[in-house]
Amino acid sequence: MFSSLTPMDWKRRAVKYYPHKVAVIDGEKAFTYTEFGQRVDRLTLALDASGIKKGDHIAVMLPNTHQMLECFYGICQMGAVMVPLNYRLSAEDLEYIIKHSDAKMLIVDAEFAAPIETIVSNLSLEMIIIVPVEGHETDLAGINYEDFILHVNDGNGYPVVEIDENQLLTINYTSGTTSKPKGVMLTHRGNYMNAANFIYHFSLKHDDVYLHTLPMFHANGWGGVWAITATGGTHVCLRKVDPPHILHLFTQYDITLLCGAPTVVNMLVNDPKAKRTAIKARPRMATAGAPPSAALIHKAEEILGLNMIHVYGLTETSPFILYNEWKDEHGAKSADEQAMIKARQGIELVFNGETMVVSRWGGSRLGW
Amino acid sequence: MFSSLTPMDWKRRAVKYYPHKVAVIDGEKAFTYTEFGQRVDRLTLALDASGIKKGDHIAVMLPNTHQMLECFYGICQMGAVMVPLNYRLSAEDLEYIIKHSDAKMLIVDAEFAAPIETIVSNLSLEMIIIVPVEGHETDLAGINYEDFILHVNDGNGYPVVEIDENQLLTINYTSGTTSKPKGVMLTHRGNYMNAANFIYHFSLKHDDVYLHTLPMFHANGWGGVWAITATGGTHVCLRKVDPPHILHLFTQYDITLLCGAPTVVNMLVNDPKAKRTAIKARPRMATAGAPPSAALIHKAEEILGLNMIHVYGLTETSPFILYNEWKDEHGAKSADEQAMIKARQGIELVFNGETMVVSRWGGSRLGW
Repeated sequence: MFSSLTPMDWKRRAVKYYPHKVAVIDGEKAFTYTEFGQRVDRLTLALDASGIKKGDHIAVMLPNTHQMLECFYGICQMGAVMVPLNYRLSAEDLEYIIKHSDAKMLIVDAEFAAPIETIVSNLSLEMIIIVPVEGHETDLAGINYEDFILHVNDGNGYPVVEIDENQLLTINYTSGTTSKPKGVMLTHRGNYMNAANFIYHFSLKHDDVYLHTLPMFHANGWGGVWAITATGGTHVCLRKVDPPHILHLFTQYDITLLCGAPTVVNMLVNDPKAKRTAIKARPRMATAGAPPSAALIHKAEEILGLNMIHVYGLTETSPFILYNEWKDEHGAKSADEQAMIKARQGIELVFNGETMVVSRWGGSRLGW
Repeated sequence: MFSSLTPMDWKRRAVKYYPHKVAVIDGEKAFTYTEFGQRVDRLTLALDASGIKKGDHIAVMLPNTHQMLECFYGICQMGAVMVPLNYRLSAEDLEYIIKHSDAKMLIVDAEFAAPIETIVSNLSLEMIIIVPVEGHETDLAGINYEDFILHVNDGNGYPVVEIDENQLLTINYTSGTTSKPKGVMLTHRGNYMNAANFIYHFSLKHDDVYLHTLPMFHANGWGGVWAITATGGTHVCLRKVDPPHILHLFTQYDITLLCGAPTVVNMLVNDPKAKRTAIKARPRMATAGAPPSAALIHKAEEILGLNMIHVYGLTETSPFILYNEWKDEHGAKSADEQAMIKARQGIELVFNGETMVVSRWGGSRLGW
């Protein structure tokens, strides 16, 4: 029987096999997979009741909260398309993206609503949903997220939609450093296969506890929003990259895995509280974006006991395309040499196709 | 860019990234991935020169030899369909299957050619290729496999064919216990996703050394013929399940992974030479087919130090559909209790769709 390759199926699996396990921790809140699944289904029902249909686009501007995770599944399981927004962009860029993406609805965190207040009259949104945050008032008019998903009739479950694996899952806008931000159209299948690489190459297990240091809006957390659910692991949310708080979470929840750009690794190792002995688990940390220096990798392993994994990719490629493969023989080298090897960009991941470097003047293959 | 999900791509990747690594060991012979790739491409060229076209069916009746591995890639990368035959079947069943499968060509091992001699006049094969085996003469008329792949012009490489992921890869015949053997039509995509499960759930790494105890004709070695190549591991071939020889290979090559039905596990633990201390690596062994008893799992772990993984599937499902997931908390239980837990059938694999038990009288879900 043919079944679509979609990350949506992993939510079904997690609810089926890990019903009582903690799916998401977010500050004082924690939800089991049953509870997470119920909240996701309630969001889908609420969207459906609001007239959102398969193929509609919904912009979402939330930090790494449980509501952000709920949006990925609640919006996409009904075949609607999520447009995750970088909440650090200027009001001007946000206006451009919201218009360009044809978003009908915006779901926004109260802490980051200020730029939207200034542009909302220029937008033609049908509805705004606001995730309330203590200590962050906003003048933006919209429906409270909790009210939105609470007042639904879930007697019959959410309307199940047939997903074509090649249909759009999300549109992720690039930062627009060279010109206007470009909307990268990612499919269910592309995200499923990228998550397969995340799952395999980062050795995910059902008992992993994943800290969302990497923004979920960034290529869907490099696939982390899907991969952790796929294996029945636990998502630990994180509103803000705050190194002392991250170091605290490492020990509080025995974090086993995280992702982040080299700049985040740098902030962690330079924190005065950074101390290997304090961290019981030896978390794996995947890094990508800018290439990490050998010195930084060395420090991360020495000072924090992190087991660094170096990957490479870009939003346009879902995102992963290369990883640095560790060989047993490297273990015999000095720590410095090991870090130098880990700083190199690597080889194709197992669940990718062929990678080639193509320039305007011809093509050459990567990774030889 | 869309790229097809096909195990053929993994051969390309292995040749690219592991050119000098040993791909296949078969008795005294060993081939690097470059050499293995060249032999595979020569087989494709020879088939092409013989008039074999995309979509043609080729029956292959070989034990777990390097030629059998070469056939999987050499036949299928040109879009032809391999029909792996169980060489233990009766001449009558073989005749039925070869006719029923519309095979144009047969590739057969000299040791197992006897039943073919008796039926060959009833078959309408266009060509027979014989893999010569020392000490096993056959009267069957055919071309020597080594001559066949040697006399090709490989100046321009083999003809690259566009693979549609939903096209046939192999037809694997069931044993026909309930009626005539049935041909199970497996696609490139189905085998790719099954191999993804093999790779992830058996924790494959590039430095794995895999012993082919499981017949490769059996659902394509449960996917092992693809998965080991995918990760750049080493295939160790095995002509025959001979427990003292297997125990010898364990230490000779530091085998890290194997698969087999419970009956093979049983043969291994009951061999007088079975001794945990002799086996340096602690190989993972996946078992499926009949359910393994708790006592057998316990013995395999106690006597041989095998780390048993219990999976479930059937040829019709490519084959894996369930696996027994190990949880940390099980480690605190007695060895007996641990074995009992491992004897249970499990939960859906990560890269499967939904599994349901459907009977004539209605359906119920598995694994709750």
